[in-house]
Amino acid sequence: MAATRLYLDWNATAPLHPAARDAMLRAMDIQGNPNSVHGEGRAARAAVEAARRQVASLTGAESAHVVFTSGATEAANMVLTPEFRMGRTPLVVSHLYMSAVEHPAVREGGRFPKAGISEIPVTSGGVVDLAALEATLSAHDKAAGMPIVAIMLANNETGILQPVAEAARIVQAAGGLFVVDAVQAAGRVPVDINAIGADFLIVSSHKIGGPKGAGALVSRGEVLMPKPLIHGGGQEKGHRSGTENTLAIIGFGAAAEAAVADLDGRNAEIGALRDRLEEGMQLAASDVIIHGKDGPRVPNTSFFTLPGLKSETGQIAFDLEGVAISAGSACSSGKVGESHVLMAMGCDPKLGALRISLGSTTSAEDVDRAIAAFARIAGRRKPVGAAA
Amino acid sequence: MAATRLYLDWNATAPLHPAARDAMLRAMDIQGNPNSVHGEGRAARAAVEAARRQVASLTGAESAHVVFTSGATEAANMVLTPEFRMGRTPLVVSHLYMSAVEHPAVREGGRFPKAGISEIPVTSGGVVDLAALEATLSAHDKAAGMPIVAIMLANNETGILQPVAEAARIVQAAGGLFVVDAVQAAGRVPVDINAIGADFLIVSSHKIGGPKGAGALVSRGEVLMPKPLIHGGGQEKGHRSGTENTLAIIGFGAAAEAAVADLDGRNAEIGALRDRLEEGMQLAASDVIIHGKDGPRVPNTSFFTLPGLKSETGQIAFDLEGVAISAGSACSSGKVGESHVLMAMGCDPKLGALRISLGSTTSAEDVDRAIAAFARIAGRRKPVGAAA
Repeated sequence: MAATRLYLDWNATAPLHPAARDAMLRAMDIQGNPNSVHGEGRAARAAVEAARRQVASLTGAESAHVVFTSGATEAANMVLTPEFRMGRTPLVVSHLYMSAVEHPAVREGGRFPKAGISEIPVTSGGVVDLAALEATLSAHDKAAGMPIVAIMLANNETGILQPVAEAARIVQAAGGLFVVDAVQAAGRVPVDINAIGADFLIVSSHKIGGPKGAGALVSRGEVLMPKPLIHGGGQEKGHRSGTENTLAIIGFGAAAEAAVADLDGRNAEIGALRDRLEEGMQLAASDVIIHGKDGPRVPNTSFFTLPGLKSETGQIAFDLEGVAISAGSACSSGKVGESHVLMAMGCDPKLGALRISLGSTTSAEDVDRAIAAFARIAGRRKPVGAAA
Repeated sequence: MAATRLYLDWNATAPLHPAARDAMLRAMDIQGNPNSVHGEGRAARAAVEAARRQVASLTGAESAHVVFTSGATEAANMVLTPEFRMGRTPLVVSHLYMSAVEHPAVREGGRFPKAGISEIPVTSGGVVDLAALEATLSAHDKAAGMPIVAIMLANNETGILQPVAEAARIVQAAGGLFVVDAVQAAGRVPVDINAIGADFLIVSSHKIGGPKGAGALVSRGEVLMPKPLIHGGGQEKGHRSGTENTLAIIGFGAAAEAAVADLDGRNAEIGALRDRLEEGMQLAASDVIIHGKDGPRVPNTSFFTLPGLKSETGQIAFDLEGVAISAGSACSSGKVGESHVLMAMGCDPKLGALRISLGSTTSAEDVDRAIAAFARIAGRRKPVGAAA
């Protein structure tokens, strides 16, 4: 039995960052509702607004353009809607176009009917096909309404970075709205809504070391906004009602600040650890296929197929070795199904794949332990094609 | 200047209960995503499911019938929808009827268009007019779809309890769905979804001493459910996608358990403290009007008008005395407007009103300090009708 557990599933959720924990511990004594006008309420409000500035810094946005939500899934459901408003004027968005490798939170299409959603293919390298995007948008019927396009910055399974700035230019030329799911990219690569040219970014607290239960829809301006998903008391300037999740928002803000501070140095170290991991795995099993290795990826993620090892079996085997890793996305409620990402890349999804994702506390010793576990599991495989 | 602050705005948000705080502190080391299948994920899942049982106990429901949301506002937006499903069969709900004193989270009507919402009046005592409910429902056009009715169990401003069990019988006889906002009632009076006969209950964590950011939609069964508001990875059996707000849910569960334990003894003490407060206020200013005093109320709430004192002025005056209280609902994002609750009760809303709400740590000394502050503020009033 393994002496201690090793957590290498940071893309599913990151352990709470010490900065987030400290901020939350201090904030547990805040008594008020941020919408109350008395002293206790104003203290809660000040803490929420400080966190808003921290999250704005993470995304290069103005803090007035950060709307806190319960997480990235809610933010996706909020922004992916046929009903927008330009100030008070309704604006119709008639069709949603998304890459074929989006996260389920986007893939479900928010408030669009299934008939109002189309996919843009990706290359075998897992990168969105910009020529296909351009061709598809040129065929969009503008008379029916604007197009809206959703492309993630970093894929949650492969870690592959998408050419979102180039995509933004294509979407803008077509008169469309552009939404970038930056959940897996934030804190791992620099993210700037203006440099990308996105209209909206989606970010999540618990992927960067903040607590679960907070996320944000970040906008480039504040005139053009989606119709609210959650109505009520009019919090978040009317964009998202409900008492703000003060404690989680404060933790999110602290994690965002820590993530920005880590961008320069620590992320390069994590990238070197990921490379060490992949070299070790290739030495241990020369037939391992590392998806997306040849293109730009976030530094912490390795997504690989070991021929003859099913995803479920592999994940359980690592768990028994004391190492927590994932078979693709954790965000499908325990379902271990075929990866739509692999399928979109033209791989046989039945091959299966495993994801190891590193984080801020991962050490070289952790990586060596993961390599050793990998080597044992690879050595126990049945030869491909052998009878069960 | 007051030596220490006195927080008497528990209906806006309750300070974190020690049981919730302890549970959250312990849970901060849970690393996993409850949807991951590895050991860390299973630990997070077990904690979420334990909290589900605790919240079920608070509402007399089965734990399988508790869907966690980001709060009561989201739960209201989820359940107030024209689109329901009976298993996989779509079911049309054509009109929403609600009492005239609902919280803004319900009052905005969720996913119903404004034309699909009607109000049921309340008496001058602040109690929903059951004859009017029955008459209105008998005029409902069943051919267009089912009616859905929302009546809160305890009003957030007045604390007045509504005859929800009687209303349930009327709604059931009319073939409608019945939603009860139990946010301000839970933990203050016994709440049992089956005893009430409601189809759905809405509860909130931060009103009972849990953290902000968690709530639940509780159902009597699990066959008839609203179309999900938030789509994505299919968490909460597909009813509510997005990674569960694990830490807040754990705190919610602990607060729910503590609230159930307090129901018998502590709530009676709080009721006695509230009566002491109201007697003290009446002694200090014989013209004070206490709204809803003659009918059943939750034990912790006092909603009153002091002639000649505007809500805003009164709230600020108490704040300067070191006492945090509210001018009606805190849930309208800092807006201090006229009370729709007072208006529905036939009072002149320009009268203004203040709300003092007690909680589990409130002492007799606290109440006496509030009475003294009240007496000073009442004594400084200008005579009604005097020039400014």
